[in-house]
Amino acid sequence: MRFLSTTPTDGITERDFVHDGVPGVLWTPGHPAPLVLGAHGGGQHKRAPRTLAQAARCVAAGLAVVTLDSPGHGDRPRSPQDDRFITEIRARTAAGQDATTLLDEYCAVLAAQAVPEWRSALDDLLDLPDIDSDTGTRFWGMSMGAAIGIPLAAAEPRVRAAVFGLVGASPNLVPAAAQVTVPLRFLLQWDDQLVARDAGLALFDAFGSRQKTLHANPGGHGEVPESELDSAVRFLAG
Amino acid sequence: MRFLSTTPTDGITERDFVHDGVPGVLWTPGHPAPLVLGAHGGGQHKRAPRTLAQAARCVAAGLAVVTLDSPGHGDRPRSPQDDRFITEIRARTAAGQDATTLLDEYCAVLAAQAVPEWRSALDDLLDLPDIDSDTGTRFWGMSMGAAIGIPLAAAEPRVRAAVFGLVGASPNLVPAAAQVTVPLRFLLQWDDQLVARDAGLALFDAFGSRQKTLHANPGGHGEVPESELDSAVRFLAG
Repeated sequence: MRFLSTTPTDGITERDFVHDGVPGVLWTPGHPAPLVLGAHGGGQHKRAPRTLAQAARCVAAGLAVVTLDSPGHGDRPRSPQDDRFITEIRARTAAGQDATTLLDEYCAVLAAQAVPEWRSALDDLLDLPDIDSDTGTRFWGMSMGAAIGIPLAAAEPRVRAAVFGLVGASPNLVPAAAQVTVPLRFLLQWDDQLVARDAGLALFDAFGSRQKTLHANPGGHGEVPESELDSAVRFLAG
Repeated sequence: MRFLSTTPTDGITERDFVHDGVPGVLWTPGHPAPLVLGAHGGGQHKRAPRTLAQAARCVAAGLAVVTLDSPGHGDRPRSPQDDRFITEIRARTAAGQDATTLLDEYCAVLAAQAVPEWRSALDDLLDLPDIDSDTGTRFWGMSMGAAIGIPLAAAEPRVRAAVFGLVGASPNLVPAAAQVTVPLRFLLQWDDQLVARDAGLALFDAFGSRQKTLHANPGGHGEVPESELDSAVRFLAG
């Protein structure tokens, strides 16, 4: 892990880094803190406004946050496969067709690459003196971020709590969800134009966790209420 | 409203009262506080353990709580109609038959009587010096308590926030839910043996409130997690 820059502001340290070619950002409060892995949504990047806002909420609550550019996103190059998926998803959406299956397939392709990247970054991050590695790592991710986080939490025992959301049951995600057993919160938007209500509920049902809570609110995919985002931070910090 | 006894303990005042023949209890903290109307569940009463525990949580959060014995419950006499419903519900349940429709009908009968009782008690309670009538009254009720609270919140503009739960869409409740427009939280148990999952989700869908949140947790009808009960108090106090 190679740190590129360090910017301390109001007691918060922001560090850009590259790990095995993957660019990321780490925010830490002024003391050793539990680490939140924050994964951005599809078409977004490590400093997308919603990712930054949720990271700021977490750091204000005394947590450290790390985010990575997902494969084909942010400062990372797009592969010919990325281009094919994106072109086809855009074409179907523009034609008013359902692109859900194709989006699920693309997310599964990205997750297969991203999960080992997150695990490898975690190896290095937990050695940093300002990360409290004893209290367990937590995961935050909505939409594509959840489609990466669910197989990550299924594979990675150091993830001990998670907030997922805005994603539905797909043939790839259901078996991974069944292997997730950590306490989790699952957020759905009741009028999500990208995630069918039944698919979201079916994924909540599929999680193996004994301690899992569904929070559903009215509104579309990008309209998770502020109060819900605040509440999720309390859950991650708890 | 006739107060029968006053018991101050650790800064909390507990008062038994009778209002138009309806027995109730009022708990107030040591200062003027917003009022929570807390309705007990079916077969329970104003001092049932869960009702007491949730009242204690609310008072600890600085709220006042009032609870009433519902018609045919607690210290109130059962009518011949109550007896007929209860006998038939028990018989169907014992025979392994579905008693949902009959339970819904009985709840509707009780609510028709209980709603004017709550409204009349509210008239007097809001005049008490230790009730802060400006910040609006809130309602808490699960199961039969929700079946009473939903038509109450539909009819009573002084109820300005509510936590309902453990009840499903019935022909009586859906039109009332559509008339409820206050901020609300709706609790469901994912494995509720008395409320079908789809019926609970359909009732959440029916509420007219723009600001409504569904919280669903694994477990049966009586197994709402402690963390959810605590969180509901923060919502009522917020």
